[in-house]
Amino acid sequence: MTQLPTPESSPLDRQFAFILEIDRLKSVLRQNSLVDASRRENSAEHSWHVALMATILAEHAGSAIDVGRVVEMLLIHDLVEIDAGDTFAYDVRGAETQAQREEEAAQRIFGLLPDTQAAHLRARWDEFAANETPEARFALAIDRLMPMVHNVMTQGSAWRTNHVVAGQVRRRAESITRGAPALGALANRLIDAAVQAGHLPESLA
Amino acid sequence: MTQLPTPESSPLDRQFAFILEIDRLKSVLRQNSLVDASRRENSAEHSWHVALMATILAEHAGSAIDVGRVVEMLLIHDLVEIDAGDTFAYDVRGAETQAQREEEAAQRIFGLLPDTQAAHLRARWDEFAANETPEARFALAIDRLMPMVHNVMTQGSAWRTNHVVAGQVRRRAESITRGAPALGALANRLIDAAVQAGHLPESLA
Repeated sequence: MTQLPTPESSPLDRQFAFILEIDRLKSVLRQNSLVDASRRENSAEHSWHVALMATILAEHAGSAIDVGRVVEMLLIHDLVEIDAGDTFAYDVRGAETQAQREEEAAQRIFGLLPDTQAAHLRARWDEFAANETPEARFALAIDRLMPMVHNVMTQGSAWRTNHVVAGQVRRRAESITRGAPALGALANRLIDAAVQAGHLPESLA
Repeated sequence: MTQLPTPESSPLDRQFAFILEIDRLKSVLRQNSLVDASRRENSAEHSWHVALMATILAEHAGSAIDVGRVVEMLLIHDLVEIDAGDTFAYDVRGAETQAQREEEAAQRIFGLLPDTQAAHLRARWDEFAANETPEARFALAIDRLMPMVHNVMTQGSAWRTNHVVAGQVRRRAESITRGAPALGALANRLIDAAVQAGHLPESLA
């Protein structure tokens, strides 16, 4: 990668190596479209959307949460996709190798930073993945709700392209309910409406 | 705008009207390219990048700062561009009408939210614009540094397209120094290197 003219291996130099490297997240495409269906969404703009969404919807979290920590998790939650790619929610084969690919990516990408910062962000990323703290559960709820909303707004485009059925989406909505009950209820209303509108089949024909 | 099936005018309904509306920031293009020069950057992915960058570079702020507040400012600082468009840093004519256009946009876009939340985000946006608190100054430093970095990495593409000279960039770097002296010094090193490499002229030929 091209280097900026900072003193070799100073903390600022390592921080900029990271900042430049993560620009690549803007070129990782997700399955879902923008709300206006003009093109597919990338993982960087998705990360912005869910981080801001978490601050807006914080009152709906299932437990008291530190919103700043949720935002930090959501800003970094997809960085590993720079190396590991975006694994579609319903891609069973991709899921088998996803953990290994993402582990290697996390080591390389967070490892660009000064050691203390690398360890801090890695801990946040692990916290999100473990999905045990109220913050991680709320972050996951937001991250799972958003593609459902995008699908509803685009007549189920990513669901139809990928032959997804309602039962699969309902199972994913369970994590939304766990992190934010009111948003889980919204998700289930969205799913029911999509089924009724013919945008999400109960089973494959 | 299409409505989600939430109870009419409930807080959640207003929050989702906002969340869906801000998806449009992903279609507002900035002057600078991605680091790999593959395409122009949009304001949503830019907002993600600077928010995360602020958490990484917080130690370089000129005064003690509340990073969460900086992140919140940076996540929303460009939302008005949905209506007002991106005014290029060195566009003198655009700057004349920018304040009025952005004021109207702020009223409409933040106004989609429940009143208390609208007032909160509006206050953060005003704080960023006033550039008086340590948090606002640091946020502006990050926001001004990033396009310089993008330009350096793309051989000054947006500078050359828009006939920008070094003195203009140096004046913008003064705000970086005010919010984060070490980053201001970096910015000035970047500018000098760009001039020396022939990517940023001292004056127009």
